[in-house]
Amino acid sequence: MENIITSKDNPVIKLYQKLSSSKKERLQYGLFVLEGLRIVEDALKEDSGITHLILTKKAEEKFGEQLFQADLRDTRTIVVSNELGNKIASTDTTQGVFAICRIPHDRGVSTLLSDNGRYIVLFGLQDPGNVGMIIRTADALGIDGVIMSGSCDLYSPKVIRSTMGSVFRMKIALENDADKLFSALDEKNVVTSAAVIDKDAVPVTECSFSGSQAVFIGNEGNGLPHDIASRCTRKVIIPMQGNINSLNAAMAAGILMWELKK
Amino acid sequence: MENIITSKDNPVIKLYQKLSSSKKERLQYGLFVLEGLRIVEDALKEDSGITHLILTKKAEEKFGEQLFQADLRDTRTIVVSNELGNKIASTDTTQGVFAICRIPHDRGVSTLLSDNGRYIVLFGLQDPGNVGMIIRTADALGIDGVIMSGSCDLYSPKVIRSTMGSVFRMKIALENDADKLFSALDEKNVVTSAAVIDKDAVPVTECSFSGSQAVFIGNEGNGLPHDIASRCTRKVIIPMQGNINSLNAAMAAGILMWELKK
Repeated sequence: MENIITSKDNPVIKLYQKLSSSKKERLQYGLFVLEGLRIVEDALKEDSGITHLILTKKAEEKFGEQLFQADLRDTRTIVVSNELGNKIASTDTTQGVFAICRIPHDRGVSTLLSDNGRYIVLFGLQDPGNVGMIIRTADALGIDGVIMSGSCDLYSPKVIRSTMGSVFRMKIALENDADKLFSALDEKNVVTSAAVIDKDAVPVTECSFSGSQAVFIGNEGNGLPHDIASRCTRKVIIPMQGNINSLNAAMAAGILMWELKK
Repeated sequence: MENIITSKDNPVIKLYQKLSSSKKERLQYGLFVLEGLRIVEDALKEDSGITHLILTKKAEEKFGEQLFQADLRDTRTIVVSNELGNKIASTDTTQGVFAICRIPHDRGVSTLLSDNGRYIVLFGLQDPGNVGMIIRTADALGIDGVIMSGSCDLYSPKVIRSTMGSVFRMKIALENDADKLFSALDEKNVVTSAAVIDKDAVPVTECSFSGSQAVFIGNEGNGLPHDIASRCTRKVIIPMQGNINSLNAAMAAGILMWELKK
């Protein structure tokens, strides 16, 4: 471990950078990257399949002791120069703690669903910050699972960072095929609510959320496609008194999850 | 107007850049900057004191007709080269629409307060994205006013951008002196609730929000200072079932404003 890597041609460093910038490479290798002490610790705590731990010399001195308490038998640790750490970092003030992590096997929507479960479906969300914030909020409010359909890549560094570690605690399933998604939900008798801003939708304040429930959130700019909203059991609206354009997708999702769970 | 400015030494461009980067300059001149078609249109619509409209040649061709329909008698319009526009832009894909705008006179907390009003107090918030998102959500949910105390600069480009134009629609007051803030609220019999994560706080689901109400939100990392929370009428908590660290300040504020107004 005292062999300090300084070259960006090192194969682990090259892999890290590929995974950091390309969804295609992430899919191909089944790996994604983490940056930052807290999220790496969260991943270690949840036993989330870290294959490589990459520390700068400075980070090894500062955080080595606490990080090495985790079970690292299946993890290869490498130490890099502070300069190389700055090169692969996504922020100007990096802590010098990086990891490569296995993408967990997606067991599918059906295995996520349980009686009286509460779910949020992200349908076509494209902003990584919104997706991350929704996953983080779902974790806080005790939502039973997040389903992603046609949304941005869950394993992009921006989404991962925005989840603040909740990506390792939440149950998350991906299903890009709308037919398969609706059959899985219908089979488990999940009531589906499409979050819309249509005037004929039911105000969320008048909705009963008993039994198993899933709320669909649509794209930031365009909302849910009409055919998807129509396939849901009902359409719901957050009553707004001010400017209707002023509720962003993550905030709308947060308020709906709050109503689902409280 | 057909004199196209190409030099960054032009006095208006120099002023724009100073205002964009420095709070001190904003305070000194009583001016702040806007970037983007939508927010400039929002400002024009709300008659928000735009002193200078700056358009790239391209933006003039594309958006000139719609922008020039506004009352621009007190506004000086200048056209700059596309290259200069790219230089002063904060994004890689600028629309080339910029403005310099007067900071409105702050009439103080007292003039903001009315009977049965609903207010949010941002106490020590430092993340411009959070502050902007809270103002935007307050606008959507029909909150009667936002009070900022010891928080980041409302007129920084990042806050302004995150408000998505709501900064021109919301009533916002600044009061950095906690004594003055509490006297103004007490004088108008406003019930104050400190949003905390203490176990002895009242769950927001059990709170009645009748009469005039203000909810205090604290700093992202540290929450509300104890002495400020103690001076409030009561402490309230958003009951969480998952990971308590996972609710960010803007999301917590959104849920509390939702409970205040619904």
